Amino acid sequence: MLENTIEFRVRYAETDQMKVAHHTSYLVWCEMGRTALMRQLGVSYAELERQGVFLAVSEARISFRASARYDDPIRVRTWLARMRSRGVTFAYVVEPADGSGVLAEAETDHICIDAEGTPRKLPSDVEELLRRALASEQGPVDALYGV
Amino acid sequence: MLENTIEFRVRYAETDQMKVAHHTSYLVWCEMGRTALMRQLGVSYAELERQGVFLAVSEARISFRASARYDDPIRVRTWLARMRSRGVTFAYVVEPADGSGVLAEAETDHICIDAEGTPRKLPSDVEELLRRALASEQGPVDALYGV
Amino acid sequence: MLENTIEFRVRYAETDQMKVAHHTSYLVWCEMGRTALMRQLGVSYAELERQGVFLAVSEARISFRASARYDDPIRVRTWLARMRSRGVTFAYVVEPADGSGVLAEAETDHICIDAEGTPRKLPSDVEELLRRALASEQGPVDALYGV
Amino acid sequence: MLENTIEFRVRYAETDQMKVAHHTSYLVWCEMGRTALMRQLGVSYAELERQGVFLAVSEARISFRASARYDDPIRVRTWLARMRSRGVTFAYVVEPADGSGVLAEAETDHICIDAEGTPRKLPSDVEELLRRALASEQGPVDALYGV
Repeated sequence: MLENTIEFRVRYAETDQMKVAHHTSYLVWCEMGRTALMRQLGVSYAELERQGVFLAVSEARISFRASARYDDPIRVRTWLARMRSRGVTFAYVVEPADGSGVLAEAETDHICIDAEGTPRKLPSDVEELLRRALASEQGPVDALYGV
Repeated sequence: MLENTIEFRVRYAETDQMKVAHHTSYLVWCEMGRTALMRQLGVSYAELERQGVFLAVSEARISFRASARYDDPIRVRTWLARMRSRGVTFAYVVEPADGSGVLAEAETDHICIDAEGTPRKLPSDVEELLRRALASEQGPVDALYGV
Repeated sequence: MLENTIEFRVRYAETDQMKVAHHTSYLVWCEMGRTALMRQLGVSYAELERQGVFLAVSEARISFRASARYDDPIRVRTWLARMRSRGVTFAYVVEPADGSGVLAEAETDHICIDAEGTPRKLPSDVEELLRRALASEQGPVDALYGV
Repeated sequence: MLENTIEFRVRYAETDQMKVAHHTSYLVWCEMGRTALMRQLGVSYAELERQGVFLAVSEARISFRASARYDDPIRVRTWLARMRSRGVTFAYVVEPADGSGVLAEAETDHICIDAEGTPRKLPSDVEELLRRALASEQGPVDALYGV
């Protein structure tokens, strides 16, 4: 499976009084992973929205295993889990950037909608890129790289 | 089932460029519902944390049905779904404050931990209050009301 | 000066690991105060944006005096400080809901822009309502009340 | 003046329905700049807090010049503006990562407090590092680099 990796540090603003990253921060990090995976596949999600194509979150499932703390280096691995004609499911692992264990595992289901919120099919070129990513073996994807 | 209801309006800061409340906002609203349900049961979660008892989120599942927009009046209904010796599951419905439909349905699993993050049992008085809430029929709970 | 008052509790998600509300939360609360003051004046800011009129923040100044903690009841008092032909300045006091002291004082400057970000004049009816608010003595404003 | 530079992209969750980064996001980015500048000076702010030393924001002033949009590469430049015996002022410029113009300029004043919120002096080694940074000419600071 083609997989995207991003790394960053936990922001102070993301912590709560339990002295760990608030649980909603993980879903924001997953969202960053989606953007990065799509860019890796050659799709700018920002551009997609400008064309009136939106991937709205229809369901999110996230399991927390360990806490992320302020300034901790974090890695998010993102991949495509499933595709439907009008939607797609992304999967994520959030982990310490040194790979020592798992902080959280998540999946988000998305439906493709237009600017009015009406379900629509994925643009065919985007669907093709996503299908190739879904089918790809672990390995280099240089030919698909965007920016 | 004893159920708590809170109402509020969608904040501007909670919207995203899809012109709807960002999907993580719903989990923040659920968290508000938890605080309010516990207060209704006579438990101050703020006080519980000062005593070294934390209900950390171990899993969250949320399904989005419709969008909430800036300034929309929102209602969150919260109830106890299940209890375990060292944890509890809350369930939520997020809906327009006028009751017209459902915006999201969610569940969050929590484990009880101490200040060091070690799992521990719920304080017995809290467990007792939660068990009574779980067993209660729909109806007044005046005897349990806190502030 | 006509003044709006809103009350709410500090959300758990708004705290940081200093165990107080993160400093950016206060500006979100001020934004809620703006929405509420405008509604009190008979202006729906949500509707204003649908008509292509935006009050973008051009400057914010905030001074923090004391900390707000999770679940604390908070009050924000908001009023119009100044008007310009293409902009307006709001002022705020954030305080404990029981009125015991001051948590923060703030001002935000806004410029009126259209959907393309070009500066424009305030709609004349909105400008008129704001000017009346600016000129009004402390006192009932029932004639202006919106929802 | 010794200056720190960080770069990152605007997150989707940071946008609002004006289709730009919400104004509070800029202050979160400034906070990231502070953490990074201190790390560059050899001070881990995370470690400082574990030792009971907190730099609470006492005032923030921010002026917005242009909008940041989703996925835009952003750069924040951070430097020490002033020092007092029990506090410090940081200054920031937020700009497109390609250096084309200015998005925002900001300053934040901080007071040094202990875990109970009582004002205290900066630890002498931290004060010394900050004073050296304040006095330094633009140029390499390799001798001070931490992680």
